[in-house]
Amino acid sequence: METQRAITIHTIQNGKEHFGEYGTSAHLLDYLSKQTPFTLQAPCGGKGRCGKCRIQILSGTPSPVTDAERALLRPEELAQGIRLACLTRAEGDLSIQLEGSKRPIGNKSFLFPHPLPVDGSLRTLVLELVPPSLEDQRSDHSRLLSALATEALEIPPSLLRELPQVLREGNWRTTLLLQKNRILSLLSGTPLGKTCGVAIDIGTTTVAAYLFDLYTGEHLDSQSELNAQGVFGADVISRIQFSLEGPANLTQLQKKILTQIDGMIHQMARRTGIHQSEICLACMVGNPTMIHLALGLSPRYIAEAPFIPVTTEPLLLPARDLRLSLSAGAIVRVPPAVSAYVGSDILAGVVASGMAKAIQAGSAVPSLLIDIGTNGEIVLAHGDRLVACSTAAGPAFEGAQIACGVGGVAGAIDRVSKAGDELSYTTILESPPLGFCGAGIVDLLALLLDAGIVDETGRMLTREEAAREGHPLAERLISYDEEPAFQLVGAEKSSTGMPILLTQQDVREIQLAKAAIAAGIRTLLKGSGLSFGDIQTLYLAGGFGNYLDPRSAARIGLIPKELGGKIQSVGNAAGMGASLALLSEKTFFLFQQVRERTSYIELSSSAEFQELYVEEMLFPT
Amino acid sequence: METQRAITIHTIQNGKEHFGEYGTSAHLLDYLSKQTPFTLQAPCGGKGRCGKCRIQILSGTPSPVTDAERALLRPEELAQGIRLACLTRAEGDLSIQLEGSKRPIGNKSFLFPHPLPVDGSLRTLVLELVPPSLEDQRSDHSRLLSALATEALEIPPSLLRELPQVLREGNWRTTLLLQKNRILSLLSGTPLGKTCGVAIDIGTTTVAAYLFDLYTGEHLDSQSELNAQGVFGADVISRIQFSLEGPANLTQLQKKILTQIDGMIHQMARRTGIHQSEICLACMVGNPTMIHLALGLSPRYIAEAPFIPVTTEPLLLPARDLRLSLSAGAIVRVPPAVSAYVGSDILAGVVASGMAKAIQAGSAVPSLLIDIGTNGEIVLAHGDRLVACSTAAGPAFEGAQIACGVGGVAGAIDRVSKAGDELSYTTILESPPLGFCGAGIVDLLALLLDAGIVDETGRMLTREEAAREGHPLAERLISYDEEPAFQLVGAEKSSTGMPILLTQQDVREIQLAKAAIAAGIRTLLKGSGLSFGDIQTLYLAGGFGNYLDPRSAARIGLIPKELGGKIQSVGNAAGMGASLALLSEKTFFLFQQVRERTSYIELSSSAEFQELYVEEMLFPT
Ligand code: FES
Ligand code: FES
Repeated sequence: METQRAITIHTIQNGKEHFGEYGTSAHLLDYLSKQTPFTLQAPCGGKGRCGKCRIQILSGTPSPVTDAERALLRPEELAQGIRLACLTRAEGDLSIQLEGSKRPIGNKSFLFPHPLPVDGSLRTLVLELVPPSLEDQRSDHSRLLSALATEALEIPPSLLRELPQVLREGNWRTTLLLQKNRILSLLSGTPLGKTCGVAIDIGTTTVAAYLFDLYTGEHLDSQSELNAQGVFGADVISRIQFSLEGPANLTQLQKKILTQIDGMIHQMARRTGIHQSEICLACMVGNPTMIHLALGLSPRYIAEAPFIPVTTEPLLLPARDLRLSLSAGAIVRVPPAVSAYVGSDILAGVVASGMAKAIQAGSAVPSLLIDIGTNGEIVLAHGDRLVACSTAAGPAFEGAQIACGVGGVAGAIDRVSKAGDELSYTTILESPPLGFCGAGIVDLLALLLDAGIVDETGRMLTREEAAREGHPLAERLISYDEEPAFQLVGAEKSSTGMPILLTQQDVREIQLAKAAIAAGIRTLLKGSGLSFGDIQTLYLAGGFGNYLDPRSAARIGLIPKELGGKIQSVGNAAGMGASLALLSEKTFFLFQQVRERTSYIELSSSAEFQELYVEEMLFPT
Repeated sequence: METQRAITIHTIQNGKEHFGEYGTSAHLLDYLSKQTPFTLQAPCGGKGRCGKCRIQILSGTPSPVTDAERALLRPEELAQGIRLACLTRAEGDLSIQLEGSKRPIGNKSFLFPHPLPVDGSLRTLVLELVPPSLEDQRSDHSRLLSALATEALEIPPSLLRELPQVLREGNWRTTLLLQKNRILSLLSGTPLGKTCGVAIDIGTTTVAAYLFDLYTGEHLDSQSELNAQGVFGADVISRIQFSLEGPANLTQLQKKILTQIDGMIHQMARRTGIHQSEICLACMVGNPTMIHLALGLSPRYIAEAPFIPVTTEPLLLPARDLRLSLSAGAIVRVPPAVSAYVGSDILAGVVASGMAKAIQAGSAVPSLLIDIGTNGEIVLAHGDRLVACSTAAGPAFEGAQIACGVGGVAGAIDRVSKAGDELSYTTILESPPLGFCGAGIVDLLALLLDAGIVDETGRMLTREEAAREGHPLAERLISYDEEPAFQLVGAEKSSTGMPILLTQQDVREIQLAKAAIAAGIRTLLKGSGLSFGDIQTLYLAGGFGNYLDPRSAARIGLIPKELGGKIQSVGNAAGMGASLALLSEKTFFLFQQVRERTSYIELSSSAEFQELYVEEMLFPT
């Protein structure tokens, strides 16, 4: 008979505590991600390579420090009990502290200053039913149907479950919210509450949710968090891999994101004093992998040629099926996607930027929309057509795979400038510097190219070489991993206690990423017989676009310099597009109309793209 | 830190073993019903009154014997470790034996000698899809939709989840089973398997399932079990009470029955070598409470005046919503009900007996259908109308609330006869006698009325009184609970080791029950201005009807003697009706057509009924 006592693990994050039983001998990353409600990022997917799944052991008996941890953590850190969760196990009770999951902000240009347009496709119906009696014993369902005699309405089973209470609490008066022949909600009496909806943008890195009044279009609240699936890998590909590794993994990924979204909705409801049953509609956009995972669809064939999603069709799903606690009849609109790597989030940008309406009218002036995230998706509108492609740009511009990279969080360096030989920088929310976000990296790299510290081929001078030339910035060059690195912030000023560096390896990552984007733009233009001069506007979507300095982007060759002056940042265009499709059924249908006029160019099989990619590898001189 | 070891419980039933952890201090009935897959009947709902939740402790440490158990169990039984599960807790590890849950048989007249009629509303569609390529990257969903171009088909999310595998395994050939614009199943290639459906009849006591080939109408297999909800009470009212006692109880009841049904389907599939994904359709009937519990709808207002069900409407539900593992798109047809106490099971009888078609044609000759179970439901067809009522007859005819009563199981005494002064009896399947089923009780009571042992008022002679008269059966009278009882079988011959008795109290139960039914029949006839002579046929539905001797029924006044010669047993009419509605959509619609022509008479508020009830209380002389 086993009488060994179970190991108890105590976890703290942001002052919240959790106690749990460590049943298996799995690593702590596994325990933390499956058994606690907390969020931990694990960009390498728990393979012990990225060094980002840092936890602090406050007390107890962890497994011994591994060599891999010695390589990825500094001795001072190890001395403070910092460990990598994916390489550490519990050998006795433990008390663990997780870094606060910093809430990404970065919705600078998504302020909803005015209510968004609503299209009035919702109808409210107030019914007075005859109360039942021994002489009139019709069931609640039959009673409701006969009061609705002229409408052929479907009552979903989830509503049937609530029916008896709703009818009796309202003393046989009930208010229905209808969309076409669907009952979205059924309330007691004639309630005074609001009728709300929520738009959701599931990004690989960040999930954002926006709460609206469905009748006035008024924006009530937003909530944005790091995608809780981050614990299974930073990018789309590592999450797909994880989903294929075990039979329950897909369900686990689905549960993770749905629980997170439900929690975000819950928080917004609480803050605004709205009851979750007053939320009757949702609209969910995201890249195809995120949408597949949220719907529990296998992304297997997205990852292998010829890259086929299960669905790119628009869907209407009961919120209940996605375990979202909205009104009993609530529906989730899932707008369509273009292909395996161009999703509803991109179409949402096309809608939000106004390109969609121009395409619908057949009169779109040539314009580009670029979303630089883990992938760089690029679409070109022209006349009545949209052409789309997706480049595997990698997550460098999101700060991933960059030594001191961070997302668009408080303390991220988003701007670097030089006056004389003095370097200065700003950070998001003016917090003490934590690392670089994409815009900061682009700024610094542009500046190092101008200063001759990095050359056209991407090679960084060593400190000795720079010193030999008497370069004023020479002393900021250090050696890191036997290669040069440029130190922007010293350990004493950084909030991590470590210097903030741009390494030779970081430059290489950026170089590959920007070449992919630049080559993608040129492939689309060539295919449509257009030149840079024809493009009227280049819309830059995503958090990155908010912060990016167009001159720096042109300097490093991310955006062709001919287009540098035409950049217009559209902020969180995906969230905006989702919100518009939430508030207007017509806009929801607009996604599908645009998608039907879209051609997709598969770059992986395009010889032209390969050639341009190599050409774009150099930095502009 | 608690280091107390959990208690392990070992349970055996029918040779199957189960080990579980006894986490709470709940009684064993609670543990056995929630944590083991076994079935235990608890007619009093675990209140320690019925004495039927018997278990045998083989070894270990149970809680001490209670006074209530001493009252309900004999010393020899206690000595053998027999205990009542609802009054016993575990104080240490236990090994428990449960009586085999005898599978009720009793489908004597439900043999499906010939295939049932099918109406060809199902369509099979074989599609050859163009395989995807880098030049044709449409999603699986889009590819399927465009191959179906001319049909406006809805693909439920459960099917989307299977889509990628199904299409690839069939090498882009797929076979769809359609009903109207619903895809019931989607299979790889052109499979050779069968297309099956399952009809389910959820009785309060017994659940029966029937497997059919949907194309040929051939009956493939049946399975019948005691309703696993029995552990929460024998009758509708005690289950409703249980559902209201705690917030999770309704879910628990729902889970119990759905898990049982899924298990029954699983067993039939295994026996017939059919894959569960080949079962694409189901049809589920039952009394309104059973249907509410299976759908997770609260039966609260069924139990209190004015007796209003949540729904009596026909429903089409995804099998997935009811956690039945059929094909991904499978649909469950739930035929409509009449009222809180006249359900789809009764309408199924009306359909199976042929009364429904006659009503539809407007030419029904006056005929009655009676289903005597926990309630006695009675319907009268006449012309184009049906009139229905339900009497709270109680479960006496199902053997519940009868001292030695059992259901229609092997060993149940179903026939008692008298030749001279010799009594003889037969049992179901000729097994050693276990107790009385309803038909046996009626036979014996008829015989005791004839013999003058029970008089018109229901009073049973004491042994002394009978002996004084020199009655030849006097020695069979004993004293039980200070009242007379008639012993049919001695302890030495009975399979329980205890004599099989009909007690004075049993006679009272039967007396109340038969009065309710007889008064119900007369109320219906009066309301329609008909007399006994007008009735052409009296259909007797339910297992009881199979075994009942019409003469005995007339003798005790259960059926008016004028109708004694017009009885026709229709066996498991509910199962037959469900099967017909499974195989034919037209028949499914027929339920609704009949229901629209049905009037319901609420007996609880009928002064007429009350009067007739008192009149019928006496036994015929
Ligand atoms: S090192 Fe642990 S997740 Fe990457
Ligand atoms: S005595 Fe235990 S259930 Fe009735």
